[in-house]
Amino acid sequence: MSAIRVTEGKIELLDQRKLPTEITYMVCTSWQDVATAIKDMVVRGAPAIGAAAAYGMALAAKALQHLEPQSLLAGLEEAALGLKATRPTAVNLAWAVERMLHFARKQNTASAVQLAELLWAEADKIAAEDVETNKKIGQYGAQLIPPKARILTHCNAGALATVGYGTALGVIRSAVAQGKEISVFVDETRPYLQGSRLTAWELQQEQIPTTLIADNMAGFLMQKGEIDLVIVGADRIAANGDVANKIGTYSLAVLAQAHKIPFYVAAPLSTFDLQLSSGQEIPIEERSAQELTHFAGVQIAPTGIKCYNPAFDVTPAALVTAIITEAGIIKNPDTETIKKFFTE
Amino acid sequence: MSAIRVTEGKIELLDQRKLPTEITYMVCTSWQDVATAIKDMVVRGAPAIGAAAAYGMALAAKALQHLEPQSLLAGLEEAALGLKATRPTAVNLAWAVERMLHFARKQNTASAVQLAELLWAEADKIAAEDVETNKKIGQYGAQLIPPKARILTHCNAGALATVGYGTALGVIRSAVAQGKEISVFVDETRPYLQGSRLTAWELQQEQIPTTLIADNMAGFLMQKGEIDLVIVGADRIAANGDVANKIGTYSLAVLAQAHKIPFYVAAPLSTFDLQLSSGQEIPIEERSAQELTHFAGVQIAPTGIKCYNPAFDVTPAALVTAIITEAGIIKNPDTETIKKFFTE
Repeated sequence: MSAIRVTEGKIELLDQRKLPTEITYMVCTSWQDVATAIKDMVVRGAPAIGAAAAYGMALAAKALQHLEPQSLLAGLEEAALGLKATRPTAVNLAWAVERMLHFARKQNTASAVQLAELLWAEADKIAAEDVETNKKIGQYGAQLIPPKARILTHCNAGALATVGYGTALGVIRSAVAQGKEISVFVDETRPYLQGSRLTAWELQQEQIPTTLIADNMAGFLMQKGEIDLVIVGADRIAANGDVANKIGTYSLAVLAQAHKIPFYVAAPLSTFDLQLSSGQEIPIEERSAQELTHFAGVQIAPTGIKCYNPAFDVTPAALVTAIITEAGIIKNPDTETIKKFFTE
Repeated sequence: MSAIRVTEGKIELLDQRKLPTEITYMVCTSWQDVATAIKDMVVRGAPAIGAAAAYGMALAAKALQHLEPQSLLAGLEEAALGLKATRPTAVNLAWAVERMLHFARKQNTASAVQLAELLWAEADKIAAEDVETNKKIGQYGAQLIPPKARILTHCNAGALATVGYGTALGVIRSAVAQGKEISVFVDETRPYLQGSRLTAWELQQEQIPTTLIADNMAGFLMQKGEIDLVIVGADRIAANGDVANKIGTYSLAVLAQAHKIPFYVAAPLSTFDLQLSSGQEIPIEERSAQELTHFAGVQIAPTGIKCYNPAFDVTPAALVTAIITEAGIIKNPDTETIKKFFTE
């Protein structure tokens, strides 16, 4: 099951809003289709929306290949703005769009048709790299997973959040492949239920022992000594190691520290935003009240109630035991260790 | 809106499973009806199920008033066992049932018909006392609430969880009545959504400024400095001050401590179980997987996924700033302070 399927001149996105009970793909033939799919969370997960946006750029180029290269580039810039505006927190989206734009600008001698082809190939490259990156993250991360570890994860940082294999779930997959008897507790992850709908489903398909809990049960399990480590993905990591990730991640990190449990973040280098000195500068997306007041069309809160629905939070680096990347593990992340890591 | 309505020879319980969109009462004419209503969470909240169970005992007596007093007592003992078996964690249930049984055994000279009448009056007394108790808790607790306090609460410890006024929400009501400009953040409280369905609704009816959040957002709000104090109810408090309350309470207490935010528990003296030296002895009810896998009949998790669904957790006394009772405030609760409080 792949979050993104590429076919002749179009992409198909697994509609993750309908999982786990329905498997349907949404066909995208324009960058606007991709933007809508990202905004509406047909596709979600920082690396997956990065790759989807790269294909969005390729679709934009394809639509303009009958024009002069300069006009195609102007159109690409418009598409880049539109795609980047869909979701503000995850930086992989901006990273992938910028990479596509930068790549396009460098192709000085290409015709518009050639440019469109080259951009499609570049999007394919971003997608292929993502899977390779995740496998490397998995290999590094698996070193940190003890045999028989009971792992808590939050949201979905799996194959569905990436082009394949996953970041946090990639680490779990690698540890399982090494023969370690892993079991996983999955936070349901309100309000969007990425845990129960996506992560539980992914792990079940791989036959990895999985137990679903509500978000507010994680502390109780830690108190009972039933969690050995926490591992999550990331949407953006600042230069000092502060990690933006799905709302609830910060609470888990505080709880993990209170119970002396390691707290790991698995993310590709494209998740780092070294422009930002700390996590305080990361924009936090707020989503609609409807996600809290309604459920599958059923009203579950009084009419007119005020809601606060931030989609992400920021975990200070001091609460992060290590960040696992495709280039290795950054232990005790802070401005110094991260700077050193990127220099080497 | 009252959780329990008493009419000629029967009680009516507000069906809290259907709030906030539907207001219906379930009529109970036997103790078995009451037991089913408690088990199925038609009525919930430690003090409310205590009072409902007292009326259950009165209904049992009424059904047996044509027998000899000894046979009525034997029937009452059977009803007591049945009622106490419905939910294991909250001690107010056992407290109310035992009080009714003890009261019945003392009426040596009463006929069965008289006994049935006396027991009904005793249930009325328990119900009336609960409202008075909550108002006293409110008065004591309001002293702890600063003007303009931004309060976080979890689950529903309001009028709906009691016979009236509420414990944690009683404190909020009292503070508002004193003219303090209070605002309240309400955890939705998965999986049963007592926060969004009940607490948000109660506070909205009183026009107290209320913001609904998912459980996993509380830590983020604390981190941003937007919570001044946390107040919750309790289902059972051990002799050392450990507090059993709705699942998620423990996580909030850890988060409150990490952010240096006061954490208050509001509960009547009937919530104390001084037989238990610590909270480790409190039985924790586990409820069905269905509460996590389905929502309003809609499947939200993969078929066959394993779930863990504890309904309560235990917060160590060390994390509790104070327990607010109808007899006063127990600051820094521990075995010593609680013993002293009950002696005086």
